[in-house]
Amino acid sequence: MVDTSNGPLRVAVAGASGYAGGEVLRLLLGHPAYRSGRLEIGALTAGSNAGTTLGELQPHLLPLADRVLAPTTVEELSGHDVIFLGLPHGQSAAIATALPESTVIIDCGADFRLTDAGAWEKYYGTPHAGSWPYGLPELPGGREKLRGATRIAVPGCYPTVSSLALAPAVAAGIIEPRVNVVAVSGTSGAGRKLDVGLLGSEVMGSLRAYGIAGAHRHTPEIAQNLRAASGSGADVSVSFTPVLAPLPRGILATCTAPTTVDAAQARAVYEKAYADEPFVHLLPEGVLPQTGSVLGSNAVTLQVTVDTDAGLLVVIGAIDNLTKGTAGAAVQSMNLALGLDETAGLSTVGVAP
Amino acid sequence: MVDTSNGPLRVAVAGASGYAGGEVLRLLLGHPAYRSGRLEIGALTAGSNAGTTLGELQPHLLPLADRVLAPTTVEELSGHDVIFLGLPHGQSAAIATALPESTVIIDCGADFRLTDAGAWEKYYGTPHAGSWPYGLPELPGGREKLRGATRIAVPGCYPTVSSLALAPAVAAGIIEPRVNVVAVSGTSGAGRKLDVGLLGSEVMGSLRAYGIAGAHRHTPEIAQNLRAASGSGADVSVSFTPVLAPLPRGILATCTAPTTVDAAQARAVYEKAYADEPFVHLLPEGVLPQTGSVLGSNAVTLQVTVDTDAGLLVVIGAIDNLTKGTAGAAVQSMNLALGLDETAGLSTVGVAP
Amino acid sequence: MVDTSNGPLRVAVAGASGYAGGEVLRLLLGHPAYRSGRLEIGALTAGSNAGTTLGELQPHLLPLADRVLAPTTVEELSGHDVIFLGLPHGQSAAIATALPESTVIIDCGADFRLTDAGAWEKYYGTPHAGSWPYGLPELPGGREKLRGATRIAVPGCYPTVSSLALAPAVAAGIIEPRVNVVAVSGTSGAGRKLDVGLLGSEVMGSLRAYGIAGAHRHTPEIAQNLRAASGSGADVSVSFTPVLAPLPRGILATCTAPTTVDAAQARAVYEKAYADEPFVHLLPEGVLPQTGSVLGSNAVTLQVTVDTDAGLLVVIGAIDNLTKGTAGAAVQSMNLALGLDETAGLSTVGVAP
Amino acid sequence: MVDTSNGPLRVAVAGASGYAGGEVLRLLLGHPAYRSGRLEIGALTAGSNAGTTLGELQPHLLPLADRVLAPTTVEELSGHDVIFLGLPHGQSAAIATALPESTVIIDCGADFRLTDAGAWEKYYGTPHAGSWPYGLPELPGGREKLRGATRIAVPGCYPTVSSLALAPAVAAGIIEPRVNVVAVSGTSGAGRKLDVGLLGSEVMGSLRAYGIAGAHRHTPEIAQNLRAASGSGADVSVSFTPVLAPLPRGILATCTAPTTVDAAQARAVYEKAYADEPFVHLLPEGVLPQTGSVLGSNAVTLQVTVDTDAGLLVVIGAIDNLTKGTAGAAVQSMNLALGLDETAGLSTVGVAP
Repeated sequence: MVDTSNGPLRVAVAGASGYAGGEVLRLLLGHPAYRSGRLEIGALTAGSNAGTTLGELQPHLLPLADRVLAPTTVEELSGHDVIFLGLPHGQSAAIATALPESTVIIDCGADFRLTDAGAWEKYYGTPHAGSWPYGLPELPGGREKLRGATRIAVPGCYPTVSSLALAPAVAAGIIEPRVNVVAVSGTSGAGRKLDVGLLGSEVMGSLRAYGIAGAHRHTPEIAQNLRAASGSGADVSVSFTPVLAPLPRGILATCTAPTTVDAAQARAVYEKAYADEPFVHLLPEGVLPQTGSVLGSNAVTLQVTVDTDAGLLVVIGAIDNLTKGTAGAAVQSMNLALGLDETAGLSTVGVAP
Repeated sequence: MVDTSNGPLRVAVAGASGYAGGEVLRLLLGHPAYRSGRLEIGALTAGSNAGTTLGELQPHLLPLADRVLAPTTVEELSGHDVIFLGLPHGQSAAIATALPESTVIIDCGADFRLTDAGAWEKYYGTPHAGSWPYGLPELPGGREKLRGATRIAVPGCYPTVSSLALAPAVAAGIIEPRVNVVAVSGTSGAGRKLDVGLLGSEVMGSLRAYGIAGAHRHTPEIAQNLRAASGSGADVSVSFTPVLAPLPRGILATCTAPTTVDAAQARAVYEKAYADEPFVHLLPEGVLPQTGSVLGSNAVTLQVTVDTDAGLLVVIGAIDNLTKGTAGAAVQSMNLALGLDETAGLSTVGVAP
Repeated sequence: MVDTSNGPLRVAVAGASGYAGGEVLRLLLGHPAYRSGRLEIGALTAGSNAGTTLGELQPHLLPLADRVLAPTTVEELSGHDVIFLGLPHGQSAAIATALPESTVIIDCGADFRLTDAGAWEKYYGTPHAGSWPYGLPELPGGREKLRGATRIAVPGCYPTVSSLALAPAVAAGIIEPRVNVVAVSGTSGAGRKLDVGLLGSEVMGSLRAYGIAGAHRHTPEIAQNLRAASGSGADVSVSFTPVLAPLPRGILATCTAPTTVDAAQARAVYEKAYADEPFVHLLPEGVLPQTGSVLGSNAVTLQVTVDTDAGLLVVIGAIDNLTKGTAGAAVQSMNLALGLDETAGLSTVGVAP
Repeated sequence: MVDTSNGPLRVAVAGASGYAGGEVLRLLLGHPAYRSGRLEIGALTAGSNAGTTLGELQPHLLPLADRVLAPTTVEELSGHDVIFLGLPHGQSAAIATALPESTVIIDCGADFRLTDAGAWEKYYGTPHAGSWPYGLPELPGGREKLRGATRIAVPGCYPTVSSLALAPAVAAGIIEPRVNVVAVSGTSGAGRKLDVGLLGSEVMGSLRAYGIAGAHRHTPEIAQNLRAASGSGADVSVSFTPVLAPLPRGILATCTAPTTVDAAQARAVYEKAYADEPFVHLLPEGVLPQTGSVLGSNAVTLQVTVDTDAGLLVVIGAIDNLTKGTAGAAVQSMNLALGLDETAGLSTVGVAP
C-alpha cells in the first residue's frame, strides 16, 4: 500500500526527452493519482537536452511545457519515491546503486532484464549489471514478483508481445520448443536517435528487416521468458526477425511453433491463460489483431489458430510498443509496486483511426 | 447542473460505426462521469451496420466490443438524456423533432450549423433545417449559448481551427476582413466513406487540394463565425483551400489577412483573447504548431506573427480534426449543456510520437 | 522473333483502370519498342469504368490522359498482337478462348496459375480453368517455357518473392521442405477495391495480418513453385502469413526453413543460382533488402544467412509488388514471348527516397 | 551541339550520397545518351561519406552499387564535361572557379540563384557568390539563357512550382502583384540531414509549418522570378508558407492573388502560356493536381480558377520536389546546355499508386 500520509508521492523521470520518458509522462498526466493530487511529477532530467524546456522537446505534453529539464544526476533524482529511467543502455546501474533501496526504480532500458550474465555479455558486450524483477505481470508468476518491488526491469517491446503470444502454449506444453517470431514494428521502437536510416524520407514507403538470424538483442530475452514459462526451465529455441515499417507506433508479431493440437484446443489454452487479465485480449475467432486498434492503449490483442497443413500453431499479437511495450508496462509495474490498482492510468481504448 | 438523483445519465450515440461516433465513444469511455458510474452508455445505433458488434467495426473500443449496433430509429434513441448524432447530412432534423425538447441532442453533422438559409441552400442543395447553438465555446460569446442548451450543432473541423485562428484578429479589428485559409487535413475528415480517392494506396504518398475557390461547404461556416466575431456583423471575405495529406488525423491551417499592426501587437491580442481558455494554447514565440502534438487531444495550438514585407497577419493553427474538430467539441458542449466541468473527459495531452 | 514487317505490334490492356493495368501501361510507355514506334498501345478497356478517360482514373499516365476506356469485350480486344489482362478472378478464360491462339495473352490474374485442379477449387471455389506457362523466368527451367509462349500466367506477388527467396535452397537440397514465410505488403496488392479496411484512415498507422494459417490463396502457389524447384516433385510444406502495412507498394518477405548448412554454404548456393539473372540481386553480406530501394523497379533483392542457434536458413527478399510482383513480370514475359531483349523496358533502378 | 567525336561525354556528380545527387544519378541511368554509351558516369564524390560504396548509401541505384565515393575535390572533378553539384550551401563557388569555363557546371544548391546581393546576404548571411543562368526554361525567356550555358543554377523546389503557377498571371497582368503561396512538401526537400524533426517517428502522422512569414529562403527567389515575369520588373509581394507533410516526395502549392478576371479568362492565359511546354500540364477543368501522380516524373500539373466571392485567382500546382523540383530540372538544363533533346531522360509518367 502506498503511504501518502507524508504528502503526495514524488515521481521523477530520467530521460524525459526520449520517447519512453515522454510516454511515461503522458500516462502519468492521466493517472488518477496525479489527477487527485496524490502523485506529483518531480524532477525531469535529460542528458544533452538538459536546460531545455519540455515544451520544445515534447510539445504534446502541454501541461508540462514550461518545465525545464535538469541534468540526469543522482542529486536531481534524490528525494523521489518513484523514478522512471529511460536512459541509454549501461547508465542505470550507477544511478540505482546511489539511491536508497526503498526508492522504486523502474528501468525502461535493458540493463537489468537478462538473468544470464553470459547472454547479456554476448548480446550487449558489457559486464552484466544483474537482474531485477521483470515488469511483465501477465507471464506465469509474473505479477507476484512485482508487488512491493523497488527495482523493476521493464521488458523490451518485442519480448512483451512475443512472450505473451507464446507463453501459454509453452506453459501448456502444446508446442515443440522451437518458435519463430517475425515482428513488424513502427519506428519509435528505435528511440529518438539521429540515424539516417530512421529519417522520415527513408522509412516512409519502405519496409526493411534488421538484426536477423539471432542478431537482435531481444532474442535472448524472448528465450528467457519462454524458458521460464515452460516450468521445466528447458531451453526454447527462438528464431526472431524484426522488420521496420512506416508507422510511428505499433508492433505486430507473427509467432509460430510446431504443434499437434487443433485450433479449438489451442484456443482453449489461451482463453484460460488470459481469462482474468485486464490487458491481454484474445479476440473472437476469426478477428485478427491490428496495431491501429491499440494505439496509445495498454492492451495486447491476440489471435491463435493452427495451420493444420503446416503443423504449426500460429499466434498473432499486437501492441503499442511505447505503451504496453514500454511505458504502459512501466506504469503498470509502478501500480503493482505501490499497491495501487494495477490498471490505474492505463486504458484498453486505442486512438483510432 | 445535472440531476442524477434518478440514476445515471443515459447517453446514446447514433452513427456509432463512423469516425465521429467512434471518437465520441472513445472520449466517453475516459470521461470521469462514466468512470464513476454517473453516466451510462446506452443505445449505439448505425445505418447499414446495424446488427454488427462494435468490436468488428471499432476494434479500438475494447470495453464495448460486445455491444451490438441497433438501427438508427427514434425508438432506439428514446429514453436517453443525451444523444450524439454522427449521421449523414440531412438526417438529424427528423430525429430531433421526434424527441423531447429536454433531451440534449448534439449533432456532429452540418444540418444546424448555418444561420443563413440562403448560404445553406447554396452549399448543401437542400432546404434549411434551421440553426442550433454552435458548439465552439471559445468564440466571443460562444460559451454562454451552450450552458443549459438542449440542441447543439458541433462545428465543422476546418471552421473550428480557422475561426479560432482568426476570430481574435477580427474581433480586435487588426485585420482587413479578407482572410485566406489553406488548411491541410488528414483523411479521417472525409469520414468512413467508400471512395476510391480515399483508399490507402491513393492517399499515401500524395497530396491533393479539393473543393477549391469557395466550393467547400466549410467556407460559409468560417465566414459566419468571423462575421459574428467582428461584432459589427460586417461581411468577411473568406478564401478557403483544403488539402488532403497522408495521415489519419490532424488539421494544420495557415491563415492570413492584411494587417498594419506589428507582430508584438498581434501577439498581445491573441494572448488576451485566449488567456483563460483551457484548450486554446498560444505557443511561445517562434514555436510552431504541429498536428502530431495534438493527436487525440482537445487542444488547439496557435502561433501568430506578421509578415511585414507582405503586410499580412499570419496565424498557424493545429487541431485533431476528430477530437477538438468533432467529438471533443461535442463532449465539451455536453459538459457545458449539463453543467459539468467543461474540461471533463478532455485532455490537452497528445499521443506522440 | 517479332515480326513487325506488317507494322507495329498492337498491345491492348484489359482492366486499364486497375493497379495492375496502370502499371503495365506505365512500363509500356517507357518500353524502347514503344518509344521507337514498333509497339502501339491499342485498346484500353475496363468494366464499370468504361466510358471514362484514363486521365481521370490514372492521372499519372499523362501521355494517355485523353484515352477513353472501352468496355472489356472480345470485340474491343480483337486485332491485337499482345493483350494484358488485369481482370477480376474468373473472367480471363472466356476472353482467352474467344481470341486466336496466336495472340499473346498475358494474364495478371490468378486463373491459370495453379496446375492442380484440386488446389484451385479448394482455394478459389470455382472450376479450374487450366494452367498456362508461368511467368517467373528465374525459377529453374522457367525461362524456356516462356520463349514464344502465347498464353502466360503472371505469378502472384507474394509467390514471386517467396519462391525466388526459397527455390535455390530447395533445388540444392539444403533445407528441409518445411518453409515459413511471413511477408509484409503495401496496400496496392489488394487492388483498387472499395473496402473499408483499405481506406487510408484505416491503413495508415496500423499493421495487420490477414489470411493466416494457410487461408491465403497464394499459399498453394508458393508450394507449387517450390515443389517444382525441388526436382523430385516432393511436397513442400508452406506456412504463409501475409501482413498489411502502411505503404502503397512493396513486399518484404522473411523466409525460413530448417537447415544444417552454414551461412557461407547457403550464400554460395544463392550466388550460383542467381549469378546471371538480370533482376535478382543477392546483396553483399550484411546488407539487408528494403522495399524502398526497389520502388518502381523490376529488381528482387535478397539476403541469405543461417541462424545457427535456431538451425534455420533465413532469407529476406524485397520486391515492388506492382512491378516485379505483377506488371514487370508481365512485361518481362512479353519480352520473352516475343523474342525481345528480356530486360527491355524494365529497370533495376528504384525511385528513392 | 555536343561533340562526342572525342568519345563519350563524361559526367560527374558531387554530393552523390545526398538526395539531389541520388536523383540526378537515377535520371542519368535512364538517359538515352547513357544507355547508348554516349554519356559516361564518371566521378561520384561525397563529403564525409567518401570511401563508402554507393550501394550502401543509395541502394536503389543497383547498377552503380559497387562504385566507391571519392572526396569532393577539384582534382576528382577535373576532366569531366558536365558536373552536377549537390553540395551544402556555400561550397559551389570554390569548385566552379577552379574548373575550366567550358565545363558545364549545374548547381543544385542555392549559391548562384539570386541576382540581388542584398537579398542573398539577408537570407543566407554570407557574401554573394554571383548568379548563373537559372534552370527553369518554362519561365518567360528562360529557355534561351540555358542553351549552350556552362554555368547553371537549378531553382529551389518551392520556387519551381510557385513560379510556374503564377508567372503566366503576372506576365499577363491579370493579378495584382501580391501573391500568397502555401506549399505543402514531402520530407526529402529538407535533404538527408540528421535532425530530430525529420525522424520518421516525428514526421509520420504530423503536419507542421516552418519558416513562416517570409523567413524561408525561397521567398526572395519566388519574388525574383515573378518580378522577371512581370516584364516591367516591378516588385511583387510574396507571402510564403511552407508546410511539412508525411510523405517522402512531392510539393502541392496553393497560390492566390487578387484578380478581376473570371475563370475562363484566367484559364485562357494559362493555356496559351503552356501550350507548347512538354512538362507543364494544365489539367482539364475541374481536375485537381496531386503529387502522387507526378512521383518520379518531371511533370508540373496545374489547375487555375477564380474564387469570385473572394476576388482571387487560385492556382494549384504539383511537382515532385526531387525530380522537376531539383534533379529533373538539372538534367533538363543539361540537355539544353548540350544541345540535346530537352526532354531526353525525363518522363511525364509518374509512379502511382
